[in-house]
Amino acid sequence: MSSSFSQGMVVTIICEAVLQERLIKLLQGLTVCGYTIIPAQGEGSHGKRMGDMAGYNTNIEVKTIGTPAIYDILLEKLKQFHASYALIAFQQKVEGLFD
Amino acid sequence: MSSSFSQGMVVTIICEAVLQERLIKLLQGLTVCGYTIIPAQGEGSHGKRMGDMAGYNTNIEVKTIGTPAIYDILLEKLKQFHASYALIAFQQKVEGLFD
Amino acid sequence: MSSSFSQGMVVTIICEAVLQERLIKLLQGLTVCGYTIIPAQGEGSHGKRMGDMAGYNTNIEVKTIGTPAIYDILLEKLKQFHASYALIAFQQKVEGLFD
Repeated sequence: MSSSFSQGMVVTIICEAVLQERLIKLLQGLTVCGYTIIPAQGEGSHGKRMGDMAGYNTNIEVKTIGTPAIYDILLEKLKQFHASYALIAFQQKVEGLFD
Repeated sequence: MSSSFSQGMVVTIICEAVLQERLIKLLQGLTVCGYTIIPAQGEGSHGKRMGDMAGYNTNIEVKTIGTPAIYDILLEKLKQFHASYALIAFQQKVEGLFD
Repeated sequence: MSSSFSQGMVVTIICEAVLQERLIKLLQGLTVCGYTIIPAQGEGSHGKRMGDMAGYNTNIEVKTIGTPAIYDILLEKLKQFHASYALIAFQQKVEGLFD
């Protein structure tokens, strides 16, 4: 591929919507360059959650992109929520336009 | 990366919303640990679909995460829908917090 | 993995919703086989954008899948928007059911 694209990591977090404000504070504290939030519905080991518009009992999908170093820290910090809430998170190497 | 994270596969399915219940039954039958559904709009070789709120003529994006073995089976089973409906599916290796 | 699955690239574009029509024209001009659009909210170096339903001041996440050759061209063409609008884009290798 072209060397004119940036290399980075994208982290995807899927969790209960009730965690949204705490995740935003966490991301801002890590000085990531940005994040995207999409409402979702789903089912997991913590039960079924329908993505209704009122924000009650829903899930969100949060995506953020940056350096591997920051995201190892982010995933470590997410372990506190993973223990008590419906939350999964995963990271993938990507290349593209960002910074 | 840290060895304290799980290794897995994420499968993303983008398809007509009319398939939602059949996909959920399929995922539950494979005993995946969970799935996430997001309403979408789009256009493909099967025509344009607007993501309206009434659930008519829309697409969905379904994500599920787990082991490579289960997802080879899942992709095989999705071939039946791929033949008759607007459906694409793809899998990617990820690492993170899940299970 | 099974050799019966296609190999391809998925490109994810996250940007201001105001770019939607221009992105669709760009994708249609590249004859990609399809695309998916999901409304989103987020925050980046260009400021915070809430994903309200009226399509005002929102973000979108656009996904499209195809060959690496087309997507190097797509990312090059996206640079014009990246300079003036809140837009990130990244590509990842995937395998699955598509085309």
